[in-house]
Amino acid sequence: MTEKSTLTRDRQAAIEQELTDRVLASFDDTDDPRLKQIMRSLTTHLHDFIRDVRLTEEEWEKAIEFLTAVGHITDDKRQEFILLSDTLGASMQTIAVNNQAYEDATEATVFGPFFLEDAPRIEAGGDIAFGAVGQPAWIEGTVTDTEGTPVPNARIEVWECDDDGLYDVQYDDGRMSGRAHLFTDENGEYSFWGLTPVPYPIPHDGPVGKMLDAVGRSPVRAAHLHFMVHAEGLRTLVTHIFVEGDPQLEIGDSVFGVKNSLVKAFEQQPAGTPTPDGRDLTGIEWARCRFDIVLAPEGA
Amino acid sequence: MTEKSTLTRDRQAAIEQELTDRVLASFDDTDDPRLKQIMRSLTTHLHDFIRDVRLTEEEWEKAIEFLTAVGHITDDKRQEFILLSDTLGASMQTIAVNNQAYEDATEATVFGPFFLEDAPRIEAGGDIAFGAVGQPAWIEGTVTDTEGTPVPNARIEVWECDDDGLYDVQYDDGRMSGRAHLFTDENGEYSFWGLTPVPYPIPHDGPVGKMLDAVGRSPVRAAHLHFMVHAEGLRTLVTHIFVEGDPQLEIGDSVFGVKNSLVKAFEQQPAGTPTPDGRDLTGIEWARCRFDIVLAPEGA
Ligand SMILES: [Fe+2]
Ligand SMILES: [Fe+2]
Repeated sequence: MTEKSTLTRDRQAAIEQELTDRVLASFDDTDDPRLKQIMRSLTTHLHDFIRDVRLTEEEWEKAIEFLTAVGHITDDKRQEFILLSDTLGASMQTIAVNNQAYEDATEATVFGPFFLEDAPRIEAGGDIAFGAVGQPAWIEGTVTDTEGTPVPNARIEVWECDDDGLYDVQYDDGRMSGRAHLFTDENGEYSFWGLTPVPYPIPHDGPVGKMLDAVGRSPVRAAHLHFMVHAEGLRTLVTHIFVEGDPQLEIGDSVFGVKNSLVKAFEQQPAGTPTPDGRDLTGIEWARCRFDIVLAPEGA
Repeated sequence: MTEKSTLTRDRQAAIEQELTDRVLASFDDTDDPRLKQIMRSLTTHLHDFIRDVRLTEEEWEKAIEFLTAVGHITDDKRQEFILLSDTLGASMQTIAVNNQAYEDATEATVFGPFFLEDAPRIEAGGDIAFGAVGQPAWIEGTVTDTEGTPVPNARIEVWECDDDGLYDVQYDDGRMSGRAHLFTDENGEYSFWGLTPVPYPIPHDGPVGKMLDAVGRSPVRAAHLHFMVHAEGLRTLVTHIFVEGDPQLEIGDSVFGVKNSLVKAFEQQPAGTPTPDGRDLTGIEWARCRFDIVLAPEGA
């Protein structure tokens, strides 16, 4: 590189940095210190991105068009910005920074868009299907704290899609199925009948789907069953369990929700195998899975 | 810090980095190398931002809501994503990386949303006002290349707001005013009558306006007159000139478009001062301004 081109390069870098510094200084009068911190960090990273890739004006225009399309497809039922955050791993990273690793506490993962507040209550060993079609799966385990003490009366919310890869809320008929809540017993134990999870695609007929297509990625989520566990004095856990052997675990979960510790065996039980609660599943193969849940202390 | 908390911190950092790495690896099969580069850099900076500020889940939700509001106010006439890019200095940084400093070439600045393709042609010394109200300002200068050679027949587009801070397109009556195009003469010289620029706010009744308010920033742009200059074999220049002494230059231009080299004296001429072209401005104070334009070589 000639001396002149080095000088030009240094001058250009100084011009770009001066601009970033000017934008940073524009937040000097922000009263809320947290907002100031966020805006300054956002500015730094946004400018570094533009400078690193040497974003062209045409690419900037495409980015504006993309964000506009994401905004326009978003309504009460479709949240394309969340899909965008999910598929860039930003949702999962937010989960990660807010659920610090704590001893052997069960790992958290993404919440997803399909939780409902008012799912029915079931008793121990009850069935969450309420008509949802799929392979019956007996799920059981304990809830303990990180000292190993059982947690009685923990509230467990569970929800999942049916065999067609659809949650109840994705049907137009107002059904509520494939979801319930239950409580651990005095020994911190729980059990219920769910469905063996199957993979399903996130909505991919919009701009985020186009993006996934352009980068050669699958929109499919690894098969999973959602859990949310509340217990007094302990950190609320939002997580999934995944299915050992699901090929999508290799291909890659489209929202990066998988943690190895959350992949569980759904052991196939030949038709006729007696069920734990005597339920009659004549002629149907079923599965069983154990998921022991460890909750971190509140504020950990 | 205890050994245990250091271990926890290291383990947490490893978990976060592993997630970022997994998202980066998801672009391994992207065919287009440029798209791959952009998505990888975007991922890195987005994740670094979330990790740096330890973004809370509540803040993430606010960000989703904010982007949704930006999307929903955006239509054919209102482009809130561009306003967002402008007010974060992202538009200006994109201009900076695409208009590398080159010797004494005139600096570029933001294009803005108010350019029209079909502005009327005027001759040297013509008036761009076409009914727009404001203080008459005689603007003159030369267009040269970086060797100092005059550029004849350069096409100069100029546009600006009126004294109420409004561009013609912001009125509902279909007027075209405050804009024109003209050409340099055989000596590379140009001159026209414009209006002394006045400050105006960017649209601030939407989510971007709320953001500016929350961070204590003014939505007002420093007074400016837009230029776009095309000449064969030379780099197209998109820029403004700003008005020396405009208080908004101290307060800060809301889109960070100001470069010191673009701040020009608009010398006030007492009523009765003879005009350069003999135009009769009886009883009116007017201004004059010199703006010599230097174009970089194409591809510089
Ligand atoms: Fe799900
Ligand atoms: Fe403007």
